[in-house]
Amino acid sequence: MAVLSVGQSLPRVDLAAKVTGKAEYVFNMELPGMLYGKAVRSLVPHGEIRAIHAEEARQLPGVVAVATGADLDGLYPWFGPVIHDQCPLAIGRVRYVGDVIAAVVAESEAVAEKAAELVQVECEELPAVLDAYHAMQPGAPLLHPELRLPDTGFTDVRAVLHPEPGTNIVNYFRLRRGDVTKGFAQADHVFEDTFRFPNIQHCPLEPHASIARFEGNGVLRVWSSSQTPYNVQVALAQMFHLPQSRVRVDVPYLGGGFGSKTYPKLEPLAAVLAWKTRRPVKVALTREEEFITVNRHAVTVQIKTGVRRDGSFTAREVRLVWDTGAYADIGPRLVKNAGYASVGPYRIPNVKVDSYCVYTNKPPAVAFRGYGVPKVAVAHEVQMDRIARKLGLDPLRYRLREVVGEGDTFATGETLHSVGYQELLRKCAQEIGWGSKPAPSRAGKVPGKGLSVSIKSTITPSASQAEVRIYEDGSAAVLTSTVEMGQGSDTALAQIAAQALEIDPGRVQVIHPDTAATPYDMTTSSSRSTFHMGNAINLAAEDAKQQLRDAAAAMLRATPADLVYEGGEFFVPSQRERCVSLAEAARGTGTGRGGVTGRGLFRTDGGLDDSGQGKASVFWFAAAGAAEVEVDTETGQVHVVKFVGGVDVGKAINPQSCRQQNEGSIITGLGATLNEELVYDNGQAVNPSFLEYKLPTFLDLPDVLQTVEVETAHREGPYGAKGMGEAAVAAVAPAVLNAIRDAVGAELRDLPVTPEKVLAACAREEGNAGHDRDHNTCQRS
Amino acid sequence: MAVLSVGQSLPRVDLAAKVTGKAEYVFNMELPGMLYGKAVRSLVPHGEIRAIHAEEARQLPGVVAVATGADLDGLYPWFGPVIHDQCPLAIGRVRYVGDVIAAVVAESEAVAEKAAELVQVECEELPAVLDAYHAMQPGAPLLHPELRLPDTGFTDVRAVLHPEPGTNIVNYFRLRRGDVTKGFAQADHVFEDTFRFPNIQHCPLEPHASIARFEGNGVLRVWSSSQTPYNVQVALAQMFHLPQSRVRVDVPYLGGGFGSKTYPKLEPLAAVLAWKTRRPVKVALTREEEFITVNRHAVTVQIKTGVRRDGSFTAREVRLVWDTGAYADIGPRLVKNAGYASVGPYRIPNVKVDSYCVYTNKPPAVAFRGYGVPKVAVAHEVQMDRIARKLGLDPLRYRLREVVGEGDTFATGETLHSVGYQELLRKCAQEIGWGSKPAPSRAGKVPGKGLSVSIKSTITPSASQAEVRIYEDGSAAVLTSTVEMGQGSDTALAQIAAQALEIDPGRVQVIHPDTAATPYDMTTSSSRSTFHMGNAINLAAEDAKQQLRDAAAAMLRATPADLVYEGGEFFVPSQRERCVSLAEAARGTGTGRGGVTGRGLFRTDGGLDDSGQGKASVFWFAAAGAAEVEVDTETGQVHVVKFVGGVDVGKAINPQSCRQQNEGSIITGLGATLNEELVYDNGQAVNPSFLEYKLPTFLDLPDVLQTVEVETAHREGPYGAKGMGEAAVAAVAPAVLNAIRDAVGAELRDLPVTPEKVLAACAREEGNAGHDRDHNTCQRS
Repeated sequence: MAVLSVGQSLPRVDLAAKVTGKAEYVFNMELPGMLYGKAVRSLVPHGEIRAIHAEEARQLPGVVAVATGADLDGLYPWFGPVIHDQCPLAIGRVRYVGDVIAAVVAESEAVAEKAAELVQVECEELPAVLDAYHAMQPGAPLLHPELRLPDTGFTDVRAVLHPEPGTNIVNYFRLRRGDVTKGFAQADHVFEDTFRFPNIQHCPLEPHASIARFEGNGVLRVWSSSQTPYNVQVALAQMFHLPQSRVRVDVPYLGGGFGSKTYPKLEPLAAVLAWKTRRPVKVALTREEEFITVNRHAVTVQIKTGVRRDGSFTAREVRLVWDTGAYADIGPRLVKNAGYASVGPYRIPNVKVDSYCVYTNKPPAVAFRGYGVPKVAVAHEVQMDRIARKLGLDPLRYRLREVVGEGDTFATGETLHSVGYQELLRKCAQEIGWGSKPAPSRAGKVPGKGLSVSIKSTITPSASQAEVRIYEDGSAAVLTSTVEMGQGSDTALAQIAAQALEIDPGRVQVIHPDTAATPYDMTTSSSRSTFHMGNAINLAAEDAKQQLRDAAAAMLRATPADLVYEGGEFFVPSQRERCVSLAEAARGTGTGRGGVTGRGLFRTDGGLDDSGQGKASVFWFAAAGAAEVEVDTETGQVHVVKFVGGVDVGKAINPQSCRQQNEGSIITGLGATLNEELVYDNGQAVNPSFLEYKLPTFLDLPDVLQTVEVETAHREGPYGAKGMGEAAVAAVAPAVLNAIRDAVGAELRDLPVTPEKVLAACAREEGNAGHDRDHNTCQRS
Repeated sequence: MAVLSVGQSLPRVDLAAKVTGKAEYVFNMELPGMLYGKAVRSLVPHGEIRAIHAEEARQLPGVVAVATGADLDGLYPWFGPVIHDQCPLAIGRVRYVGDVIAAVVAESEAVAEKAAELVQVECEELPAVLDAYHAMQPGAPLLHPELRLPDTGFTDVRAVLHPEPGTNIVNYFRLRRGDVTKGFAQADHVFEDTFRFPNIQHCPLEPHASIARFEGNGVLRVWSSSQTPYNVQVALAQMFHLPQSRVRVDVPYLGGGFGSKTYPKLEPLAAVLAWKTRRPVKVALTREEEFITVNRHAVTVQIKTGVRRDGSFTAREVRLVWDTGAYADIGPRLVKNAGYASVGPYRIPNVKVDSYCVYTNKPPAVAFRGYGVPKVAVAHEVQMDRIARKLGLDPLRYRLREVVGEGDTFATGETLHSVGYQELLRKCAQEIGWGSKPAPSRAGKVPGKGLSVSIKSTITPSASQAEVRIYEDGSAAVLTSTVEMGQGSDTALAQIAAQALEIDPGRVQVIHPDTAATPYDMTTSSSRSTFHMGNAINLAAEDAKQQLRDAAAAMLRATPADLVYEGGEFFVPSQRERCVSLAEAARGTGTGRGGVTGRGLFRTDGGLDDSGQGKASVFWFAAAGAAEVEVDTETGQVHVVKFVGGVDVGKAINPQSCRQQNEGSIITGLGATLNEELVYDNGQAVNPSFLEYKLPTFLDLPDVLQTVEVETAHREGPYGAKGMGEAAVAAVAPAVLNAIRDAVGAELRDLPVTPEKVLAACAREEGNAGHDRDHNTCQRS
């Protein structure tokens, strides 16, 4: 091949746009005549709306309208990716502090904000449930007495959707493999641990923002910070009783998603306000609103594992209770995917998982980078170290012996492929200097090291479409609905298309999502774009080349099958000098035909049965982590000296982008491990700002932050590539926790690992010193 | 078919957008941070720029830059559809009063205008040529000593492009069929006439407007009032040395084109100013600038015809001299197409046409509704009546006998199809009450009637691409680069797609041109969209249905070939009850694939050889006109009492739209016949405003304006349809002139027919009364 762009660390194509501030984000967009919507939010976690007094707000100069649930008359007001339990404006009931009761629309954002404060709401408070354990008990106050299931939806969730009527359990996923009773009976040791994880927030640089406008020709146009433009299109078409063809969703650059911008979020509200006022309306969240609008699931993980004397597994049982907040969003699927991932990447013959998705009167928990796995990986990896200690095994060698490899069967019954744990573990261990004990930097600082692995699926089944248009000069546009949200998709997809066409990547332009222009893609999430959209682009490029091959053959008076394409030219090998360039073939003979468009559809199959058996994922994320920490035994402060995050990327389309994604994953993981927690008081977030919510800063990062990219080519991936963007997140916390245990013997089971918790764990450890207990074995290593 | 949308007078889909003022036009568009460009124009018709003094302008607060030809350094500054003779900013030489010497860019339009007036230009005036006859003489001052031919271009023009080096003749088209010398020798009578036509202007409601912005990712985006987005894309890519994929041209609604917005116009200037300032720049013309930027060719037509005693033709010779102004634009093609059309739709065995396209120091003449034919039709039709009078033939019966019909051979040697002149003439004659003489409305008013026919080609060869996307709910988007410029394409194309898919046209959305999203179309002009894009859409719809048929077959466990598609459903005829809807097939099984996209390419072949023989057109416009006028013998005022315009539409996709297009054509024709003329004084337009340039108002319209649509199905047209939008224009002037002759005997050969000219002609006629002359036989009928 003449031009090799795949595998090259080409500079990001969005670099100039972003550093010059020219990149367009919905949050910054202004349309002529645009109004601004601002939500009036519930102050109680659960209540019935009795009256809304908006007279004073309406009289404020600049206020155009105040909308309430009553304004949804004539619309289908419900939305939600799995359950239709959300409304753009509350109808009767509010279910969390922050739930949208009304919205003010005004000529400026400032007026809208001021007017929103003037709206008085009479609300009769109802009993609230503020944690999942209480919420799932019989007799707990019910958030949604009836569940509205849409006609269509994600087949993978629908197949395993088992709400428990009369409770707040919106989904119960179970996995059964082998016989755990028998398995535990065969065990020499049984370990049981419980881990707890709080809500955290995605903190995208660009808060959620949506603009809606009803055009004169009856089309509803929406510009939105969405990772799922097509899903939004479908939801709005349903809400406004419009054909999908009359809802057009555009996504320009998106300033960070991390899962928070999947499925409808602000779009229904913006559209309703535009519909009511007949003018374009923008709704954008303040940072405080961002914190109370979506977050990451809080969860409790109970994990019980039986092992033989040599450490080999006989059984594992996991019980997961997820706090999904007031609306289901994608929670019902997340508890499935994190459910089977909770088994960990190990060969375990008997497995039982029960995973509950439970409504509570808290803000909705949604998808978050790692999709639940960063929590379940803490459980299996911290316990793994505990087992190793109990049995006197080296954590590295133990993992190397028990971890899954090529051809092994996973808990879901499927065969694993492209899971390079051996190489990952060895490389991460080597980079961290596994086996040697570093000297403390000064007295009172105790060093330690820890390892981890994690496994995660990607959304399956799914579909991606791409079009590759070849212009008459041989340059190409790639039309996909993949959202460039900072992950580098524009660059990677351009490289894939350039490689397929054997042209300079600078001649490939990736077009941003627009449901009227770019074809269907299920979602930009689940780190699926390189694999799925890359494949779709390859198919589209082949389709385009096939059309051009026919044209070139006619020009060369040859049969298409005899033509070779190389370096941007078609030719018959025996007559290399007589060739037709991509441009010539695209132009065609005569006046020209205006180029060609190739199309590609990449679709995966899969799904699980009621026992959680089947095919969960078209590829698997394999990650490993290695941490070196120093714990200040006086303050409890944990400093991560070095972190090595390893991911099997299949094939690095752009090695530098892969490194950057891994670095981002590690930082996300470190924030959740050491700093981040959304704290609630009676359902009210008490730290919804960057002053109080401790997102890691550059000063909080490890002294050395290192990534390892392993390439175990995936046979179905484009050039062997698979997804990797979020893979490393899950390996971070367990490696750090294991390193802290290694340093000071502290057994930590609740995130984040604050200095207070470390000191308390150390104190517990002092008290337990010398005792050997079946559970929670703790000793200074 | 369950849904019949083709043939229905559905309301225009752009109706609401337009009557509510919501339709978006570039002229009204504003982008954030946008600057405004205003041209500094030449005051002399021909000159060398010696110096440009812009200091004062630059110091005006709000002025960001003043650009001149020197700023084109590093660019390829030339553009033009046939000859690269234009620059966005003059380099050294100016060639007409209005030529762009410099441009001011400012924060507001008002400041830009004011600053433009402050720019001082030192210009050394050169000898100018202000009419085509003088310009084509040897030794005349040359406008373009060298002609820059682009590498690629329209094959139909290039094949017949014969500039005459060392002269101002930029193209000379000739047609030779049979032997005119022999033909004239066989004639019993030879008629010679000369007709003159002035420049007129298109007067689109929306003046030309273009906005250009260089995006952060290196893409040049342009929003423009263009009828040819892809042509603009190619020109800008060449100018800025960019791949086509990095130039993106959007065309929202366009407020009237009439040919004036084909090929690059303001786009290069807007792009150059955006490139210089690094900000979005809008250039929009004032009405006065509109008048001096483009216009319709002035032309002199000499026509000589030999007939036998019975009126049958033996030979025709036509000499056409077109004043194309200072830059060629599409003139070289126009002189070809109007050249062969000048023969008229008659069976004439020996034909000779010489058509000259000549540079003059006047604003560039460009395409205009009718493409030259409204002038040549005056020549052959006024002469036709003169022949009839000479030979004592009834103009209707004479035409019916001599006009071409199905299977006849045209002057270009090709066989004619779908030319319903017989029906057109009979119907128009019937509607006008041919044969009866109306009573004058009052004394001094003399009534008369006249008939006409005309023939016109459409651009051939050409190509149109379409995509039809079927969403998961079975609704559809039609992606084409056809520009909705008021002609009703959104409606007609939606109807065609709806018919092909057998769905409600309300579920079809036509997407406006965007070269990054909608596939190639050569041009929205030449009344070609219904025929070409309609065919492309049918192909795309079939392609989409084929994909869905395969999906449906899998769902029904049937073979695709066994399936019938009817009323939006696939089924096996023997099992009608088991069916798969369009939506179900689009969704596919399982999680879905996101619908399908079908593609269609419709391409025509053709072209003429050096004798003007070959295939000129994929279909032919056949039109007829019938006028009843009343001439005020005292004032010379002509009042058109009734006009009937008839067009063979092949098949009326939307009958009401066809009528409206015909009405528009007739009004355009009447304006040129009675009112419109751009007057120049030493190259300077003296009436460039709606106060002085007499565009017809509603008060100027006939008392009765009637249209006749005949449907002679075209075998290659979608549902038999062919183009018709501009067909009637050419039939207007000759019918009115013939009616005036019928009324008062006045022989008029110069348009517009002002009262002064009528009175003068009547006076000449009085002087000639009773004389029988070979040429210019005039007598009161």
